[in-house]
Amino acid sequence: MPDSTDAIRVAVVGATGYAGAELVRYLARHPKVRIVAVTSEQSAGKRLAEVLPATRGKLDLELEAFDPKAVAARCDLAFTALPHGASTVGVAALVESGCRVVDIGSEFRLRDPAEHERVYGTHAAPHLLEQAVYGLTEYSRDALPDARLIANPGCYPTSALLALLPLVERGLVESQGIVIDAKSGVTGAGRTVAAEYLFAEVDDNLKAYKIGKHRHAPEIEQQLRPSLGEGCAVTFVPHLLPIRRGILSTIYVRPRVGVDMDTFADAFRERYANERFIVLTANRPPEIRDVVGTNDCAIGWTLDEKSRHAVLVSVIDNLGKGAAGQAIQNMNAMMGWLETEGLDHLAVVP
Amino acid sequence: MPDSTDAIRVAVVGATGYAGAELVRYLARHPKVRIVAVTSEQSAGKRLAEVLPATRGKLDLELEAFDPKAVAARCDLAFTALPHGASTVGVAALVESGCRVVDIGSEFRLRDPAEHERVYGTHAAPHLLEQAVYGLTEYSRDALPDARLIANPGCYPTSALLALLPLVERGLVESQGIVIDAKSGVTGAGRTVAAEYLFAEVDDNLKAYKIGKHRHAPEIEQQLRPSLGEGCAVTFVPHLLPIRRGILSTIYVRPRVGVDMDTFADAFRERYANERFIVLTANRPPEIRDVVGTNDCAIGWTLDEKSRHAVLVSVIDNLGKGAAGQAIQNMNAMMGWLETEGLDHLAVVP
Amino acid sequence: MPDSTDAIRVAVVGATGYAGAELVRYLARHPKVRIVAVTSEQSAGKRLAEVLPATRGKLDLELEAFDPKAVAARCDLAFTALPHGASTVGVAALVESGCRVVDIGSEFRLRDPAEHERVYGTHAAPHLLEQAVYGLTEYSRDALPDARLIANPGCYPTSALLALLPLVERGLVESQGIVIDAKSGVTGAGRTVAAEYLFAEVDDNLKAYKIGKHRHAPEIEQQLRPSLGEGCAVTFVPHLLPIRRGILSTIYVRPRVGVDMDTFADAFRERYANERFIVLTANRPPEIRDVVGTNDCAIGWTLDEKSRHAVLVSVIDNLGKGAAGQAIQNMNAMMGWLETEGLDHLAVVP
Amino acid sequence: MPDSTDAIRVAVVGATGYAGAELVRYLARHPKVRIVAVTSEQSAGKRLAEVLPATRGKLDLELEAFDPKAVAARCDLAFTALPHGASTVGVAALVESGCRVVDIGSEFRLRDPAEHERVYGTHAAPHLLEQAVYGLTEYSRDALPDARLIANPGCYPTSALLALLPLVERGLVESQGIVIDAKSGVTGAGRTVAAEYLFAEVDDNLKAYKIGKHRHAPEIEQQLRPSLGEGCAVTFVPHLLPIRRGILSTIYVRPRVGVDMDTFADAFRERYANERFIVLTANRPPEIRDVVGTNDCAIGWTLDEKSRHAVLVSVIDNLGKGAAGQAIQNMNAMMGWLETEGLDHLAVVP
Repeated sequence: MPDSTDAIRVAVVGATGYAGAELVRYLARHPKVRIVAVTSEQSAGKRLAEVLPATRGKLDLELEAFDPKAVAARCDLAFTALPHGASTVGVAALVESGCRVVDIGSEFRLRDPAEHERVYGTHAAPHLLEQAVYGLTEYSRDALPDARLIANPGCYPTSALLALLPLVERGLVESQGIVIDAKSGVTGAGRTVAAEYLFAEVDDNLKAYKIGKHRHAPEIEQQLRPSLGEGCAVTFVPHLLPIRRGILSTIYVRPRVGVDMDTFADAFRERYANERFIVLTANRPPEIRDVVGTNDCAIGWTLDEKSRHAVLVSVIDNLGKGAAGQAIQNMNAMMGWLETEGLDHLAVVP
Repeated sequence: MPDSTDAIRVAVVGATGYAGAELVRYLARHPKVRIVAVTSEQSAGKRLAEVLPATRGKLDLELEAFDPKAVAARCDLAFTALPHGASTVGVAALVESGCRVVDIGSEFRLRDPAEHERVYGTHAAPHLLEQAVYGLTEYSRDALPDARLIANPGCYPTSALLALLPLVERGLVESQGIVIDAKSGVTGAGRTVAAEYLFAEVDDNLKAYKIGKHRHAPEIEQQLRPSLGEGCAVTFVPHLLPIRRGILSTIYVRPRVGVDMDTFADAFRERYANERFIVLTANRPPEIRDVVGTNDCAIGWTLDEKSRHAVLVSVIDNLGKGAAGQAIQNMNAMMGWLETEGLDHLAVVP
Repeated sequence: MPDSTDAIRVAVVGATGYAGAELVRYLARHPKVRIVAVTSEQSAGKRLAEVLPATRGKLDLELEAFDPKAVAARCDLAFTALPHGASTVGVAALVESGCRVVDIGSEFRLRDPAEHERVYGTHAAPHLLEQAVYGLTEYSRDALPDARLIANPGCYPTSALLALLPLVERGLVESQGIVIDAKSGVTGAGRTVAAEYLFAEVDDNLKAYKIGKHRHAPEIEQQLRPSLGEGCAVTFVPHLLPIRRGILSTIYVRPRVGVDMDTFADAFRERYANERFIVLTANRPPEIRDVVGTNDCAIGWTLDEKSRHAVLVSVIDNLGKGAAGQAIQNMNAMMGWLETEGLDHLAVVP
Repeated sequence: MPDSTDAIRVAVVGATGYAGAELVRYLARHPKVRIVAVTSEQSAGKRLAEVLPATRGKLDLELEAFDPKAVAARCDLAFTALPHGASTVGVAALVESGCRVVDIGSEFRLRDPAEHERVYGTHAAPHLLEQAVYGLTEYSRDALPDARLIANPGCYPTSALLALLPLVERGLVESQGIVIDAKSGVTGAGRTVAAEYLFAEVDDNLKAYKIGKHRHAPEIEQQLRPSLGEGCAVTFVPHLLPIRRGILSTIYVRPRVGVDMDTFADAFRERYANERFIVLTANRPPEIRDVVGTNDCAIGWTLDEKSRHAVLVSVIDNLGKGAAGQAIQNMNAMMGWLETEGLDHLAVVP
């Protein structure tokens, strides 16, 4: 636990959702921060441990309703993990009050206000879109120290982009026909109380959903566009897995003429040579369990010799590198700390 | 239960594996058959109910070691559900003794002996390959009444082919670039006692395996080749789901110019107009649970407007339409009975 | 499917809850009934197959709002499977309109109005309590043919009573100190949309709940009282399992002096000699999976030699013998049919 | 990571089993130890990361076959986590070579050689039984600094004893009739490759096993005997849950006359006032998920007013406080360190 004189003071806004609880889990053991505020609209006034029993005896805090000014007055940095639509105004108020923000929501990810409006509807603070830094840490690192507002990437985009970017940046794959078949655990939907997320509906089942319509597709395309060009369009199909955490994306690409798996290997190894959270498994595809409970992304690649498709497999914990973990990595980068501070856990296996 | 004078006498060879047990479950309530022999090498001499407690008080049979002549002497038809490599000689002996056979194994599926050898190794009864009928019932119906040996299709091929064939037969999709991203429950591997199938390894996990190397890819290509041509090559990636039963295949195809989803719908509806086990769900993709415990295959289709990929979603119970169910449907067709005899169950939901 | 001239006409009131859907699954294949009405408040106006995809192509019915008179006018018998508190008035109206009713709810189980009020609150139709027959079929059979209203027992009581009654009726166990440690799958709570039943909350978890306060304890005691006397009090602790279906009750009793496991065996075998849904496994305790998807109750018993506790293990499918299955068995008995009509399924394993 | 000059050097003998892997997970981040040897008979010669992918990029070690002298030469302390029967001779050799040992196996837990022989068979190093310290840390603390060999308690006994001991030591409950109904995740059986632990056998199932015969019952009784007397006999029934980790024990006791739940509360609070790994939840029973991934034991208690049984609910992670966690806590106590060193994780929820 940090010495109070050194540590920065942080807030977790929306601490009782799944991403919020994971932030609490990581931050409680982060050597350079002190959690001074945790908010929850539904449970304001309760002790944190009543709602998150895992903190019993370990973290003694009272949940409060989210008041941006009150939070900004006591905190150097706030993590905002609110349901979509609930956070824009609050985030803006935090930023204006001088509190740095890492936003785990989806409202500051699309840079183009028109695109945002098309995908999510009207934006309540469009002036902030320009200054928000898209926090895929491995690709945003230079901009993070000066950021006031970091838009933490979506879980599916994080999984897909970390596998695709080293290849598309070097022009190693055809720009057309990229297929991302992604499978996610249920916490990707947050703590949404809806019939479709009941145990009896999810267990021993699998379904595809929002084929061609998921909001994360435009986010992926936004990040691929600089390399693939304006017309860039990926086919993205998410599936709901009967597991709690983890995303596995199976990605189908066409290597350009003359490109083989050695070229892929070079691209991945060079791009990620110094990255502590990227694990390259080459032709042994990673499994979800390899990364659950961590901030890691593991990536493998294999050529189907006969059909000439290359198959990338990328796994993350949607609450780790796909949410809370990457948020903390972004904070670490923003503060100039080692990016691994507070994030050096091993996966809990089995 | 059938009257003994009307019913044919059947054997389940390999009755204690998962497909064998599912055959027993269906056959025990089939109005036109009587199970007279159940075999198990490991449990020979035990009562069936000791090994399959679900049959307690419902089916009183003794497990015996598999002796083809003894089985042929007492049975009109045998279902063989043995691990790969264990069944060829026994199946040949059954056929030669005049017992009709529906083989759930993989040894009679590839018609070309050279292809079989390349994929599975030397075949122990190559002379039978020619007379074996590939039993994808909806496409093999005419040949079934005269068959002596039916090769029941693989589970993944059943799932993929029922979705693809109506489109490729009519030339509605590009022959190149077909991607089959398939996800299967663990019973697809049979009752294999190996570390990778332990609960603690499978639960809350997902992995891709045998990318570009699975033995079901050549089987799929064999059935697509008449429509797609000699060079036909699909990209097939199977995944192991943390569920017991069910396969969901997400299939990516490129509609030919001028083909839209209405054309797809017409193709599916016309091809499957009179099929009792094919459920068409159009643009609402089916879920695995819709078919668990049944012989159904449910198929949906959706266009990703921007990327122009069409996405097919096909679900079966790998032990139903992917194994025991289709085997019984094949028997029904072979005997000239209603194909739904003994197979009219509704899915057990939830 | 029944010939319309022979079959009785039945309604499933509350057809889209879990017990209701299971009634539909069984009744759709029952040879002596025809489902003519299915009701759902939330989905009135929709086709049944939209809400229960497993019925697609198999049952073509429109969901309607529950109107007791309209149902009574078209049906000979109604199964009512409504959330607690929603059914009393409707059930009364059905009965008064001459429609026989099997009620799967909890409102007619406690015979004593004062006890009902203490446990559940004010009863809306107390005059019916007296005429309702408690439908633990194996113990109520004689009263069923004349019943107009059958109160289907709770799932936990069914599991516990079928194991305890043969022993307590013969006075083989001490009346004090009976412990029922019961574990249930989540469908025991119905399709309740609440955070505690979300997949992410239930998966890989286990919890005890309502210790000493569950409403099923008085129901169990009501049925034991004739044998154990007025002061009868069992210790009943339910647990929520991460499974969809099934109850396993581990029951601890003290054999009276001179009673051994042979005495137990005799009691069980004599009491259940002709019962088709009771499976006795003696000292090999049954597992939940042995009965999932069926109307069976399997019971085992073992003596802990050192501590002198006898341990009973009883398993049922909470949606089968614990709800829909027993309701149909009760209908069969009421109508004078074979009790196994429509209920002769084998468990779906694995 | 520890500075090499300060840290003690430790070995994990049997590093690829589930308890061994959990030791590695904890020890890799323990500030006062350095892992210098990891052994595995089956994988000797491989890199640890090949077998435990979660260590990829985080721990670079080669697995070796277990050679006690070689281990003792390089290590100050060894954790032995071998299958039953495999460790006795090796442990003895380690101890004789001057290496301190924390043994996670079952061979040094029963102090009485005759009792050991009755339960487990002949002991290969009976002279060590006397000097082994039974390491239920909260009750063994004084003996640990001088111990050369610590017998880490069984997982079920840990869960049961931590709940029972505060009550029996004070004589608050009747000594007769104690019932321990325990439910464990599958990792309690280690990485045993057997049909009964396959996913398809465990998922959506529950079973009781070894009723009155489990080897952990004599271990529990050994620890209760000083308080309850020679004739002490508990009724212990374990169940196999479809979860990976965690034990929940529901324990039924009879409070002595005059004892109420306040007396219980006082006993627990006083006994565990300074314990960092004991969480008391009073009348809100803890759930398994509250402790998964940690070394915590959470305990609740409730009186069933009518039956006068008190119900204790105790949860641990069988790989945490039930194995690797407690082993490290024991090492910490042995070395005179803070017991929480390396063990201050929060539960991974959900």
